[in-house]
Amino acid sequence: MRILDTKSFSVPGFKAWGIHSGIKKNEKKDLAIIYSDREAAVAGVFTKNRVKAACVILNTAKVKSGKGRVIIANSGCANACTGKQGLADARATAEIAAGELGVKPDAVYIASTGVIGELLPMPKMATGIATAVGLLSTSGWEQAAEAIMTTDIYPKRSIVQEEIGGKTVTVAGIAKGSGMIHPNLATMLCFIVTDAVVSASMLKKALFASTERSFNNITVDGETSTNDMILCMANGAAGNKRLAAASRDLKKFQACLDAVALSLAKQIVRDGEGATKFIELEVRGARNPIEAKRAAMAVAKSSLVKTAFFGEDANWGRIMASLGNSGVEMDEARTDIYIGKAKIVEKGLAQGKAADREAAIALKQREIQIIIDLHKGKASATIWTCDMSYEYVKINAAYRS
Amino acid sequence: MRILDTKSFSVPGFKAWGIHSGIKKNEKKDLAIIYSDREAAVAGVFTKNRVKAACVILNTAKVKSGKGRVIIANSGCANACTGKQGLADARATAEIAAGELGVKPDAVYIASTGVIGELLPMPKMATGIATAVGLLSTSGWEQAAEAIMTTDIYPKRSIVQEEIGGKTVTVAGIAKGSGMIHPNLATMLCFIVTDAVVSASMLKKALFASTERSFNNITVDGETSTNDMILCMANGAAGNKRLAAASRDLKKFQACLDAVALSLAKQIVRDGEGATKFIELEVRGARNPIEAKRAAMAVAKSSLVKTAFFGEDANWGRIMASLGNSGVEMDEARTDIYIGKAKIVEKGLAQGKAADREAAIALKQREIQIIIDLHKGKASATIWTCDMSYEYVKINAAYRS
Repeated sequence: MRILDTKSFSVPGFKAWGIHSGIKKNEKKDLAIIYSDREAAVAGVFTKNRVKAACVILNTAKVKSGKGRVIIANSGCANACTGKQGLADARATAEIAAGELGVKPDAVYIASTGVIGELLPMPKMATGIATAVGLLSTSGWEQAAEAIMTTDIYPKRSIVQEEIGGKTVTVAGIAKGSGMIHPNLATMLCFIVTDAVVSASMLKKALFASTERSFNNITVDGETSTNDMILCMANGAAGNKRLAAASRDLKKFQACLDAVALSLAKQIVRDGEGATKFIELEVRGARNPIEAKRAAMAVAKSSLVKTAFFGEDANWGRIMASLGNSGVEMDEARTDIYIGKAKIVEKGLAQGKAADREAAIALKQREIQIIIDLHKGKASATIWTCDMSYEYVKINAAYRS
Repeated sequence: MRILDTKSFSVPGFKAWGIHSGIKKNEKKDLAIIYSDREAAVAGVFTKNRVKAACVILNTAKVKSGKGRVIIANSGCANACTGKQGLADARATAEIAAGELGVKPDAVYIASTGVIGELLPMPKMATGIATAVGLLSTSGWEQAAEAIMTTDIYPKRSIVQEEIGGKTVTVAGIAKGSGMIHPNLATMLCFIVTDAVVSASMLKKALFASTERSFNNITVDGETSTNDMILCMANGAAGNKRLAAASRDLKKFQACLDAVALSLAKQIVRDGEGATKFIELEVRGARNPIEAKRAAMAVAKSSLVKTAFFGEDANWGRIMASLGNSGVEMDEARTDIYIGKAKIVEKGLAQGKAADREAAIALKQREIQIIIDLHKGKASATIWTCDMSYEYVKINAAYRS
């Protein structure tokens, strides 16, 4: 697998673009289009929140066909909690795009992100879609990635290539965070495209597996949005031999999808709202993988742990308290905790000033590794998260203003 | 029931005091003693965290006897995650106090709060206990309440009186918060004393009931400490007729205990770390009480909701998203949301600018009432919480420094 530079981001058979259509009050881009020049297999993962945005309701129905050609995504307005009018607007958006692109409305998927409870400005959407369609380009991915940003600081992209079935296959994606990031659902907007020849059902399986290993292992603030989704389109332009179940080629494709999904997931954490630290948190020695993940997530979600990381404070007592609350089988007197390479806790006890000093140095870095060994079994899990800063509070106190 | 002024705080048969013994680095009080001049019935509620401080382990064993006379509480050091030495130190603390007061060590309960993973400074504890015992006073409750504070801004006290069984019975308590406040355990230190004549088993039942209606309905940051406990001592000095099961007198006593517990619980929220708003959040129309409480707690715990309150932003979409994530049966299209008296959402839809303006005024107040009606059933629940401010992050980033 080759990881490509995002500057030369291009996927055969796909075009993209992003513009400012007027949904956002500032001059920033707010409307993105992704277009396949032929019918593509489509798979999706959608929010598990009971309150679902219009786009989620619509796409959940559409994706059953397993095919499509277009994604229209807007930022600045979530079109969630907008009732019948919201659903009608989402449908109209698909129809407008279908008309402009000469495809069927069923082939157009919708995604929205932004403030809940406000209606889409449909005249602006219509003008914006027409403009963006006219600008569609094989190299328009940076513009598209920018147009789906909300509180994100930078656009998130990832692209890899691999020889599969005798052809060069490209897998690439763009995503946006950056608050309301928590797993057990599609927790943000993520659009992955590939020119691989693959069936919709196989694509779905592969996408679910990748999601479990990437987006479901990150948390920024334990929140879950009404809108979030991962959509994956495979248009077959690579012309590879169709990927067969349990084949070596499928494994290679899965590895590519995993790499793109994990890269985007980590980029979302790095750009977490107000984040100043990127934290890789591994729990080892759990009784089983579920408990390993639950324990790691309990620590990663704790506001007290996250503020301590922001303060560069090796306050391991908060880590221990979070483990104790996680519901996971653990025994304080067996538990070891490492911050960076410093073993600051062994068998539940502090290891003294030298270890504390080493941990303090590790905590000053931008990237921090935490290892917790429960010594209860052989299962492990890794979660990626960030610290909680003043800036997180500021961003979210003022979000609608 | 009469709610007394905390300035005239005194309970027959009890003495208290608080001093600075040197556990805290600053000059603030850090050691409290509560003493009953005769054997008292004792009941306790302890943290459900699997990682338990030495004091919790010790008291859990002691409280089985249902009796005791003394509570020694220190702030500044949690004596948690301190292994065998920590347990030995807690036992020694009880022995020192027992020696000074001329009681059996079994009659002495221990409570600690502060940094996890550090050992108690035993020589300072010994000197401090001797000093505090010499100062014990029937009017020393303010000193005791101050000595258990950590990041609390003000001491928390509550006292009520009622005619029960032909006598005046007093129920009074002190408590400390203010981070790591979350229910499903005793979530802070709270000591309640009464001169009522009541059996230990009845006191336990009454205390559990009060806890469920007070401390288990508050949340500051969704965290659960290793140390937290509620201890209640009833020394019988009032000389009332022993409270009988299901009697009118028992109901009156329960009402007093409820009032003290609820007052202290609300004081903890008002003094939540960095709190600028006190929020009463009621969920109505849930299918059953468990779902009502779960839905209310999901909203009250959400960092996004709490930061929006801090920003005085009527961002009801975040409330709706939290409800959708709560796991509770709800239907967006039936849900109403009130902020203050403003019905800002009816049947899942925004109610326009006039309602928003009214909500904006309500959000500028120090105390805010939120009502959510799910229209799914008849059950309701009320939770008290606070907003999340820059100050919360600041306090917790710098806690050990």
